[in-house]
Amino acid sequence: MNDVPATGSDRYVVISADGHSGLACEDYRPYLESRYHPAFEEYMAERTAHREEALAFNYDYIMGWEKGNEEGLKGAFDPVIRDKELDADGVAADVLFADADAVTGMASPPFGAGLFAGAIEDPELAFAGAHAHNRFLAEMCAHSPHRRGGIALVPITHDIGRAVEEIGWVASQPGIRGIMIPTMWRARTPYNDAVYDPVWAACAEAGLPVHTHSGEAPMEEYGDHTGVYLAEVVWWAVRPAWHLLFGGAFERFPDLKFVVTEAAAYWAPDMMWKWDQYMGGGHTTKKLAAMLQGKISKLPSDYFGTNIFIGASTMSREEIRRRYIIGTDVVMWGTDYPHPEGTWPHTLAKLQADFAHVPVDDTADLLGLTAAKVYGFDLDDLRPIARRIGPSPDLLGQDPILRSDPAERAGARWWKAEYGVQPPG
Amino acid sequence: MNDVPATGSDRYVVISADGHSGLACEDYRPYLESRYHPAFEEYMAERTAHREEALAFNYDYIMGWEKGNEEGLKGAFDPVIRDKELDADGVAADVLFADADAVTGMASPPFGAGLFAGAIEDPELAFAGAHAHNRFLAEMCAHSPHRRGGIALVPITHDIGRAVEEIGWVASQPGIRGIMIPTMWRARTPYNDAVYDPVWAACAEAGLPVHTHSGEAPMEEYGDHTGVYLAEVVWWAVRPAWHLLFGGAFERFPDLKFVVTEAAAYWAPDMMWKWDQYMGGGHTTKKLAAMLQGKISKLPSDYFGTNIFIGASTMSREEIRRRYIIGTDVVMWGTDYPHPEGTWPHTLAKLQADFAHVPVDDTADLLGLTAAKVYGFDLDDLRPIARRIGPSPDLLGQDPILRSDPAERAGARWWKAEYGVQPPG
Repeated sequence: MNDVPATGSDRYVVISADGHSGLACEDYRPYLESRYHPAFEEYMAERTAHREEALAFNYDYIMGWEKGNEEGLKGAFDPVIRDKELDADGVAADVLFADADAVTGMASPPFGAGLFAGAIEDPELAFAGAHAHNRFLAEMCAHSPHRRGGIALVPITHDIGRAVEEIGWVASQPGIRGIMIPTMWRARTPYNDAVYDPVWAACAEAGLPVHTHSGEAPMEEYGDHTGVYLAEVVWWAVRPAWHLLFGGAFERFPDLKFVVTEAAAYWAPDMMWKWDQYMGGGHTTKKLAAMLQGKISKLPSDYFGTNIFIGASTMSREEIRRRYIIGTDVVMWGTDYPHPEGTWPHTLAKLQADFAHVPVDDTADLLGLTAAKVYGFDLDDLRPIARRIGPSPDLLGQDPILRSDPAERAGARWWKAEYGVQPPG
Repeated sequence: MNDVPATGSDRYVVISADGHSGLACEDYRPYLESRYHPAFEEYMAERTAHREEALAFNYDYIMGWEKGNEEGLKGAFDPVIRDKELDADGVAADVLFADADAVTGMASPPFGAGLFAGAIEDPELAFAGAHAHNRFLAEMCAHSPHRRGGIALVPITHDIGRAVEEIGWVASQPGIRGIMIPTMWRARTPYNDAVYDPVWAACAEAGLPVHTHSGEAPMEEYGDHTGVYLAEVVWWAVRPAWHLLFGGAFERFPDLKFVVTEAAAYWAPDMMWKWDQYMGGGHTTKKLAAMLQGKISKLPSDYFGTNIFIGASTMSREEIRRRYIIGTDVVMWGTDYPHPEGTWPHTLAKLQADFAHVPVDDTADLLGLTAAKVYGFDLDDLRPIARRIGPSPDLLGQDPILRSDPAERAGARWWKAEYGVQPPG
């Protein structure tokens, strides 16, 4: 592949698989139909109260972040500033989720239709908020669509017919490259149910990967115990993956892609191991394997890299070390711009700290080439940008001739040999 | 420690931290107050229908298991047969959970008060079923109580006052060494809530470890997709651990022990890593660490081995390889007798296959010494039994002079050095 640097000075095409884009809450008003304005005023009051609370709790941290990054934060909604910030961070293109303000939530789509859409009671408001954001997002992506991967909001839990309509609309917008569904279905229908087939069919047909993104969790169960939230928020985001897999969605729609974003990736190896083991028999799983016959046609781990992908954002060193088990064709880097827990505006320093000893071909996959495949970015468009602003192996302190060891890669999913697991059938 | 074999022919004290005991459903009738008999008849009809369904689906497997192990399966309720089966399996003592029949559920306590207690609607029935089982269990454990670790049923979600009363009663019964609480709280109060403090206080005071055991899950969300159940049943069983930890229960009751049983152990290393990282700061967790200050006084991983323990049952080789990260003072072997997914009646063969290369001191901890500490078994009572029936290093094909490497053990929780995490405060 000619997108793997051949010399120390060639540049990587970096595609951030996790970024956020959105207007300041009140600026969504003109994107909302006027009949929703009364409800919107209530929502704005609630948002403002939430910000006051956050400021009372943590004023110095919040103001420090906002004042220290005032200009760059505007890239959430200003495409020219966004391109400038991406350039400075060495990023050729990025994927745009909602909720650009992760600190006080003042860039959430109306009614919480972004990362917390599952909690919206009224389907009317869920779709109104989602569509307002999608209208903004389409404008945002119309500017340099080759650098944008807009992820539209579609609250499929709330109305499947309307969801399919919304998918039809967003599919026609340049630079929209996926949809995000509510992380939690709550009291609505679980994602293993075939009732969602029209949604999966529309997404598979349009080539729009379906996403969950971490954030939502059953907060009403947590009291004021933030540690509980931290301990399980990733699980709630990943949960739809196995509901789709074991519900047979990838059998019925082999072109359907599901991506779980900003929910780390460390969990994937053990998950694949245990899932493959259920299918593969062995004494302790004999009673289980019988129940799975006929449900799926491949080993569960074989759906990773064809149907299941991971937008791991700023991966940890441990996740980079586990890259062959997880799959360099599965997991994608992301800066999480413009969230404070991400690497922006110090992405280069983070890459230097964590990728210095990673082979060049693996680095190219993790930082951009896998995302290009998943989202259909055109590398012909991105190469000239990367040549101008992308990091090089020299800049990352890498040995430019280091390549991955095929044997290490091939044997990484150790349980296949240890358990002798075989595909079903 | 003189319970670590010093020669190849010394015997290990094996304590199985996961076994099941229970009557055939209908035999619980005399243990139930007569006013519950009408409800019990309904329950029996439902159980019988469930068995018919299971037989229709999988007759050969079920009858093969039941006929092939007819005598040994009676050890579920006959203490003399149980001792004989334990002897033949090399097991000196075992821990007794409810629901002895994992195949068709025909040994469940009334109203499903065992592994599925969270789903019972009526608190009256939940306590009636639990108490019926506890009465049987007390009789079962009164025979050779030194070899029994009875785990009483206490549906704390359904009534905290009655739960504390029941704990008072079971604490006085010889051989009862712990309680099991519902795995799921469902619509009732989550375990992070201080409303449960009287329960934790009673258990800490009586020295009764609190257990969850895998089994219950939100089946109503799964349709007929068994793979979904398999993919998340472990998580539901482990979930209470972090609700207790981050809810501060171990701060208020430092003697409280929580054990999660038959929910594997592979998840513990990543869980400790991520939890410690939240506390330990670093750029990406700066906004989170601030929220956890003052909630807990130690690193989350430091509660493992003092407050949190794992009854991993028949651990996989991979879990044995991870023993220093998980902690040999945390994780405990179990045969799951008399369930078909366990090692009985072939425990020795399984130990030979998986422990041949494990150092003798680690083997002693994993197979029994950690369980002796957690449950307060008296090794003076068990040593003579072990000398008669326990496996030896020679029998397991071990090198009798092999001991664990202190450096390997000390560095196992790799993230402490990599992240430089420090205890809070």
